Amino acid sequence: MNLKIDGKRLLKDFEELAEIGATIGGGVTRLALSNDDMAARAWFADRIEEAGLWVKDDEVGNLSGVLSCDNPEAKTLMVGSHLDTVPNGGRYDGAVGVLSGLECVRTIQEAGIKLNCNLEVINFTDEEGTWKSLLGAYGLIGKLTSEDINDSLQDNGAFRAALYRAGILPPEIPRAKRNPDDILGFLEVHIEQSNKLHSAGMDVGLVTSIVGRTTFNVTYYGEAAHAGTTTAEERRDALQGAAAFIILVHTVLNQEFEDGVVNCGHVNVQPDTFNVVPSQASLHVECRHPDTEKLQQMSSRVVRLAQDCAKDYRLSVGIDRVLHREAEQMSQALLDEFRSACDAEDAKHMPIISYAGHDAQIMNQITPSAMIFLPSVNGVSHNPKEFTEWHHVETGANVLLRTMLQIADAD
Amino acid sequence: MNLKIDGKRLLKDFEELAEIGATIGGGVTRLALSNDDMAARAWFADRIEEAGLWVKDDEVGNLSGVLSCDNPEAKTLMVGSHLDTVPNGGRYDGAVGVLSGLECVRTIQEAGIKLNCNLEVINFTDEEGTWKSLLGAYGLIGKLTSEDINDSLQDNGAFRAALYRAGILPPEIPRAKRNPDDILGFLEVHIEQSNKLHSAGMDVGLVTSIVGRTTFNVTYYGEAAHAGTTTAEERRDALQGAAAFIILVHTVLNQEFEDGVVNCGHVNVQPDTFNVVPSQASLHVECRHPDTEKLQQMSSRVVRLAQDCAKDYRLSVGIDRVLHREAEQMSQALLDEFRSACDAEDAKHMPIISYAGHDAQIMNQITPSAMIFLPSVNGVSHNPKEFTEWHHVETGANVLLRTMLQIADAD
Repeated sequence: MNLKIDGKRLLKDFEELAEIGATIGGGVTRLALSNDDMAARAWFADRIEEAGLWVKDDEVGNLSGVLSCDNPEAKTLMVGSHLDTVPNGGRYDGAVGVLSGLECVRTIQEAGIKLNCNLEVINFTDEEGTWKSLLGAYGLIGKLTSEDINDSLQDNGAFRAALYRAGILPPEIPRAKRNPDDILGFLEVHIEQSNKLHSAGMDVGLVTSIVGRTTFNVTYYGEAAHAGTTTAEERRDALQGAAAFIILVHTVLNQEFEDGVVNCGHVNVQPDTFNVVPSQASLHVECRHPDTEKLQQMSSRVVRLAQDCAKDYRLSVGIDRVLHREAEQMSQALLDEFRSACDAEDAKHMPIISYAGHDAQIMNQITPSAMIFLPSVNGVSHNPKEFTEWHHVETGANVLLRTMLQIADAD
Repeated sequence: MNLKIDGKRLLKDFEELAEIGATIGGGVTRLALSNDDMAARAWFADRIEEAGLWVKDDEVGNLSGVLSCDNPEAKTLMVGSHLDTVPNGGRYDGAVGVLSGLECVRTIQEAGIKLNCNLEVINFTDEEGTWKSLLGAYGLIGKLTSEDINDSLQDNGAFRAALYRAGILPPEIPRAKRNPDDILGFLEVHIEQSNKLHSAGMDVGLVTSIVGRTTFNVTYYGEAAHAGTTTAEERRDALQGAAAFIILVHTVLNQEFEDGVVNCGHVNVQPDTFNVVPSQASLHVECRHPDTEKLQQMSSRVVRLAQDCAKDYRLSVGIDRVLHREAEQMSQALLDEFRSACDAEDAKHMPIISYAGHDAQIMNQITPSAMIFLPSVNGVSHNPKEFTEWHHVETGANVLLRTMLQIADAD
């Protein structure tokens, strides 16, 4: 069979959706649970009903269109992504995954193909983390704790108000948990947020793994002293220790962990003035790696380097791990399906690692999951200039369609 | 003649003064223009009148006790320091200079010695910079501009209110300017704010020069990017540039400028979060050197190093000089007087550089000035634990007395 999606219809959806929360300069702002996010969900629900699919929503705000097969025992093959965006983000991130999923289910529905599984296209809540990164996906796999909803780092009152306004009742959220036995797998189409595919002239990236991430707060403690009368030898300068660490952690980790990335953000110095030797310097450091074990090694390296710098500058150091997300290896079986679909569609493909988090990373914890990336011109991401050539979006949708059919029949 | 000061009377003054603004733990808080600073001035004025000296105050709040000689044409030999302190500072910083000056003038007055010049012991306003560092001294030499009073970095409203409350009318301040022709010189006694004299077992330090100081704001500009999807090669990380600069500026300047000191304080990173590559990193760097030309070389070195780091990390950099104070060589003639006085008093002395600013540094711009330092145990400064053995204070006062007499007669 050589079924194809309707590129024009997909483009029409894409352009309509881009109008919701459109910003000057061609960007989009649809912050999770905002009015524009609500409008996008309503619009999505209308498309689902229009297609004669079943509108399904759960207790954490995930919104789906379902095509059921005749077998009441059948599992469900899920596809999708997210419709929310960062402030003034691009029109492709997330949207492409949800809309091509919808287009595929619609196409299969219209073709009247008999399937051995149900199909579900899902829009996950707050993937971008306006309130809580990957909220919907975590809720669906049953990993949301009350701490997540009462995160002290958030303005929790506003968060809860936003949840209630969106009809999400925190006490009900646990009921959003799905039974893994009911799910066949999860497929996600997403634009690449880097330049690898575009510069390599590829049509599709087969995501082999999604990086794990570990974040530390590192604080150096020295001694405040008169910046004029204290000799270089006498000083216990917390800022020099922090600076040495920032340089070292980049040099060493980039050297020792080819597939890893490291970043230092926020820096705070006490007392915050030019004529006193800093007694305290805090910073945030995060490392990412596609291999969980390597990520663990990176973390230990970060800790050792932080301690080395403390020793070198006669400081004490406090190191707190504030965030940890495991790396995920995508399902090899599903990747093979994606690959053969690419070949059948004459889509040039290459394996690629995702250095950003995605809903598929969370879904992978309860069901076989896989992703494909589409080329993003110059890799511009979270930016109105984000752009993917339309023929790549169509190719991606057709690869997804073919993959869904392969899996649905193979079952 | 072998005149000596009255150590008991000096100690009584010292202990009375230390009660004004006394803090728990033996410290003192007499912020310039505060109630406690006002109380200290009133107490000082009482001591001056008690001694039968003339109470003189000027338009910038400096308060003096004057002993006039018979010659109406005579110049004035000035001695003194400041009675204000930093928050919870020590009892010796500033106070020792004013009180030993008062004690010397009193002693000479009582001895009925005929002098060829007037003597004046002065308490300068806000040496510590609660509002404006060295305010009184700058006012006296006529170097206070209206910008100084309207410094945009200050809460100017509060500053002006404090000035008015202390009876200092900004429009009147220019009238505090003295005619250099009327001044013979200025002598200041101060505790050392470092450990050199104490560890060398000296009684007195002959201050050869006071460091100049240049302060820069350095801001690196890179490019904000996704901390996960941006490779190490692609990054233009402003924080890495700033960190490299912090390390380099300490290493290189300590290496190249033996008598110089450098300090980096305040650091600010934008966007201030761990998962975005920093697009901006600002910091303050200050360098001090006792030699004006060397200080100039240090400053140029700072600028070149800042630019080198910008190049190394593919960043642009903005460098603003925000403060510059010339280094001052103390008067050789007055230092010789101090030295011979030390010898006569059997006070072990050594030359020393002042790495902190002092009123003498400003006075030196209009009249020959010199300072002596007294040993500070462990060099503790701006701290309740600041301590100088009393016999050292007495020795310092007697050295000052002898020096004043030498100069007054020599004139």
